Amino acid sequence: MTHLRVAIGQLPVAVGDVAGNAERIAETMDWAEAHDVDVLVLPELVLTGYPVADLVLHREFVAEAEEATARLATRAGTTTTVLSTISRVAPRRSWDTVDRDVSISAVLLNRGEARGTYHKVLLPTYGLFDEGRNIAPGGEPGALWRLGDVVAGVSICEDLWSGDGPPEAQAAGGAQVLLVPNASPYHRSKREGREHLGSRVAWRNGVPLVYANLVGGQDDIVFDGSSMVLDGDGRLLYRAPAFVEDRAYVDVPLPAARAVTAPVRTVHTVPLRERPRAHTPACAEPLDELVEIWRALSLGTRDFARRNGHEQAVLGLSGGIDAALTAMLAADVLGPEHVLGVAMPGPETPEEELQDAHDVAVSLGIGFAVVPLDALMAGSDEALTTAVGQVERTDPEALEAGPRAARLRAAVLNAIGDAHGHLVLATANKTELSIGAATLRSDAVGGFAPLRDCSKTLLYRLAEHEEVAHGRIPDRVLHKRTSAQERLGATLPSYEVLDTIVQRYVQYGEGVEDLVAHGLDAEVVVDVLGRIDRAESARRTSPPGVTVSPRAFGTDRRMPITNGWRPSRRADSGAVDPDHPRFALDPETAEAPDR
Amino acid sequence: MTHLRVAIGQLPVAVGDVAGNAERIAETMDWAEAHDVDVLVLPELVLTGYPVADLVLHREFVAEAEEATARLATRAGTTTTVLSTISRVAPRRSWDTVDRDVSISAVLLNRGEARGTYHKVLLPTYGLFDEGRNIAPGGEPGALWRLGDVVAGVSICEDLWSGDGPPEAQAAGGAQVLLVPNASPYHRSKREGREHLGSRVAWRNGVPLVYANLVGGQDDIVFDGSSMVLDGDGRLLYRAPAFVEDRAYVDVPLPAARAVTAPVRTVHTVPLRERPRAHTPACAEPLDELVEIWRALSLGTRDFARRNGHEQAVLGLSGGIDAALTAMLAADVLGPEHVLGVAMPGPETPEEELQDAHDVAVSLGIGFAVVPLDALMAGSDEALTTAVGQVERTDPEALEAGPRAARLRAAVLNAIGDAHGHLVLATANKTELSIGAATLRSDAVGGFAPLRDCSKTLLYRLAEHEEVAHGRIPDRVLHKRTSAQERLGATLPSYEVLDTIVQRYVQYGEGVEDLVAHGLDAEVVVDVLGRIDRAESARRTSPPGVTVSPRAFGTDRRMPITNGWRPSRRADSGAVDPDHPRFALDPETAEAPDR
Repeated sequence: MTHLRVAIGQLPVAVGDVAGNAERIAETMDWAEAHDVDVLVLPELVLTGYPVADLVLHREFVAEAEEATARLATRAGTTTTVLSTISRVAPRRSWDTVDRDVSISAVLLNRGEARGTYHKVLLPTYGLFDEGRNIAPGGEPGALWRLGDVVAGVSICEDLWSGDGPPEAQAAGGAQVLLVPNASPYHRSKREGREHLGSRVAWRNGVPLVYANLVGGQDDIVFDGSSMVLDGDGRLLYRAPAFVEDRAYVDVPLPAARAVTAPVRTVHTVPLRERPRAHTPACAEPLDELVEIWRALSLGTRDFARRNGHEQAVLGLSGGIDAALTAMLAADVLGPEHVLGVAMPGPETPEEELQDAHDVAVSLGIGFAVVPLDALMAGSDEALTTAVGQVERTDPEALEAGPRAARLRAAVLNAIGDAHGHLVLATANKTELSIGAATLRSDAVGGFAPLRDCSKTLLYRLAEHEEVAHGRIPDRVLHKRTSAQERLGATLPSYEVLDTIVQRYVQYGEGVEDLVAHGLDAEVVVDVLGRIDRAESARRTSPPGVTVSPRAFGTDRRMPITNGWRPSRRADSGAVDPDHPRFALDPETAEAPDR
Repeated sequence: MTHLRVAIGQLPVAVGDVAGNAERIAETMDWAEAHDVDVLVLPELVLTGYPVADLVLHREFVAEAEEATARLATRAGTTTTVLSTISRVAPRRSWDTVDRDVSISAVLLNRGEARGTYHKVLLPTYGLFDEGRNIAPGGEPGALWRLGDVVAGVSICEDLWSGDGPPEAQAAGGAQVLLVPNASPYHRSKREGREHLGSRVAWRNGVPLVYANLVGGQDDIVFDGSSMVLDGDGRLLYRAPAFVEDRAYVDVPLPAARAVTAPVRTVHTVPLRERPRAHTPACAEPLDELVEIWRALSLGTRDFARRNGHEQAVLGLSGGIDAALTAMLAADVLGPEHVLGVAMPGPETPEEELQDAHDVAVSLGIGFAVVPLDALMAGSDEALTTAVGQVERTDPEALEAGPRAARLRAAVLNAIGDAHGHLVLATANKTELSIGAATLRSDAVGGFAPLRDCSKTLLYRLAEHEEVAHGRIPDRVLHKRTSAQERLGATLPSYEVLDTIVQRYVQYGEGVEDLVAHGLDAEVVVDVLGRIDRAESARRTSPPGVTVSPRAFGTDRRMPITNGWRPSRRADSGAVDPDHPRFALDPETAEAPDR
């Protein structure tokens, strides 16, 4: 049986940094060449980073990518490199009246030349994806490429998942192997889904599949890597590790040559050589689900901080679990000596909260400062009460201490961040962002909010997990459920109920009737959904964070701020105890993976 | 010659408020019926509001719209109403692998029934538009409708502008009139562009065109109305006024019946009756450009405030022109007695700035409060310096007064907003948001930033315009160019140069080479472009505002925060005096209108 030596370069790339990415690509091409690799597959948009968003509207950016591609081509030797980038194409109209003239492409580099270009056909335009916005679709799903005596198909990410799309057209046309660059973001259960679907594509078509994915964080997205090589029966030959750079090569058994029924473009015509089989590296073991989430949060936070030039971070340490986990994350990725936790006790802060904040800082080894709000509160009391009292229709009595303290805490954190160039980390979680509670506690202020897509229920699980946080957060902070629950206020249900409602409403688009049918109390549901909708304004000005769920607030779920929709009950099905629904709660179920 | 009595309902609608919108629609249907109107055309998504964004992922929302449509149908009499809404359709795959099952539709209501549905074919997915995200495209661009003895075509907004799309298919198939619901947002020069294109469509096809547009603000979009009726020679018969609700009916001369070459669906078969010609109402006069912009800002701000439940607003009054114009806008739309201007003099504030702030408040008749920052600055000095000095690698000396005062000002404004439910208005302009200067002065804090898409150059023009601001802002504030310019810092060019660079980079996607070719200094250009890119993080957490240019920051221009691209000079073409480029500056040119 003939074997093709394929390599995967699971590279971290920086959006926009074409020169830096090109350097890394060149180095990987040299490595592949040195190992006598036949085909090196790199991730989607490895040259420009993903997503490029409206960068492609800048002509100079597209030109820069094209020039770098030409330079990389001159470097290519006998290894064929599948290099994904953006390419200028003839203007094309599709779903609207705008001509688009940039494609997401895979350029085949061999022996000093760019020998051909595949243009991505299917352009994801949902969830976190916006490709339909700026990208021209490719029009040749069945394109085939001759690599010596092997016929190959190339498709890009979304192209793979149609069920009857480019890979099927290519295999039906005679492809013996499918080469697939990808930019597939992480969310819970995503890897399992990808492997299942990849396996079906390979098996359905009877051809091996080489799947190269990006790794690294980009604003609210984190790419997990987890690249893979599958044989023609859909069996996993190689799985790259998650959340780290990787490169590996595998000798893949090729199916016999097929009847070729479509035009084939020649990359080169030098037949495969006989050579000893390469040792196949071991598959990386899948990670425990919570460890995986923690790694996603870490990588996303690290890359955001580093790539935006922050070596240090500052955050508010409240003594609660959200702040403790945010601090732990920052300590892990920046080093504890580069993290400053600031406790800002106000008039209403119990002494033990300050002690807990201190203990968290000591336990993690991060810097710790106490900025008492007394002087600030007194200063604002005086100034605000007098000034506002002079104005008709404003009431100095309304200036409650609680929200005012929150605003002053935000000012303090931002002032420290301004002064030292520290990244201000917001400690808000998904549950509190969903109902607007984060704003009231200054938890949503900063440049990055690592935990913004983690529900409170998930955070408790992370904090208690052996391999994530064990022994690193003081027990008292860990077991503070009651006080945290109290902070939610008497009118809200438990975190478990709340997270179940948030997940089903936000993630699955369920409504009042569905949730009531699920056993939840109608009044509670209507109240919570109303809070979620009304909190959109506060969410819109909150910083980005790492997406770990199948639907995060933000670019993944785009809702109007001004929104007159009030989900309501149409018929009453009887009262239900809000904390004891008729069915099992599922605040933590991840959706069936999509792609 | 036969005449068809067509009516336009240029209605303000609230996104999500199906019940409220339905009420207004019902009332308009009754009015049309009472005036013996043959066809009433309502704007795009008049029932749900536009844009619906991810609301359509909520099944209950789609069901609510469908139920309301059914109820409105029962109300229809002999007038045919073209009612645009969302409709559940058979799942359809298009540009990616997601099945979409909601269309943007126009339902034809007549004599108690919904007699048929047109589904929008072309789905704008660029700029402010995201329809490709959730909407299934219609597949019958040439659909025809029998209204008695008249054959009509219906198309929706983007459908109109292809040049060879649904209107052409419909007219070629036999349509004698084109009925077009629209949700066409305002930007400068948009109306002229629309009328030019509408006229070409009518003339090219030789059929009258009835164009109904929305009016009102929705987050960062404002719809200007300016609906129109054109005859078959492309002549304007009626133009609705801009920025206000309107309804009007016109007897439109129909071209002779054409050979019908495509299937026609029957709405009804009752022939047109003879009756006296209706008086055609006068066309609204186009507005002066600056007055038009001011009306756009006013309507967008009014609707944001009202629809989000704010009757009152608070803003920081610095004594500068941005704050003065924001205050004037708020006074205009909420009433001066509902606006509170807060001056927050810090250690560096000159006495005359405070006087100017006071004079602005007096001149506009708004509430005025002075909150001196002394006590707050002293409180924060004490607390921060001690606390931060204890921590390694932080330097109390770095806590500069300027940025800290800005953060404290933000806290004060937010605290007042929290206390009274006031909308906090940010005073930032486009120039300062573009280079990141707004954050440093707390100008970008709040719930809405009315002027965020207005360049400083434009603001000066607005402030000096006879019909906009004449006599309402004290002279000293108006003529403060020098101090404003000084605040930009010595390293930046004049506002005119800056605005020219911003406009050409952001709006046209020009790069360093283009700008240098335009006569600008390369070093200045590279510096400014770098600032624009780096300020993305601050812009991302800034509040929305009214879009008035062809490309606003925000949903209209989506850039990565983490962005390694550094536009740079490739070859040097010699130094240029940054304030005296070789060519005319054009900080104020609006792009050729698109649609």
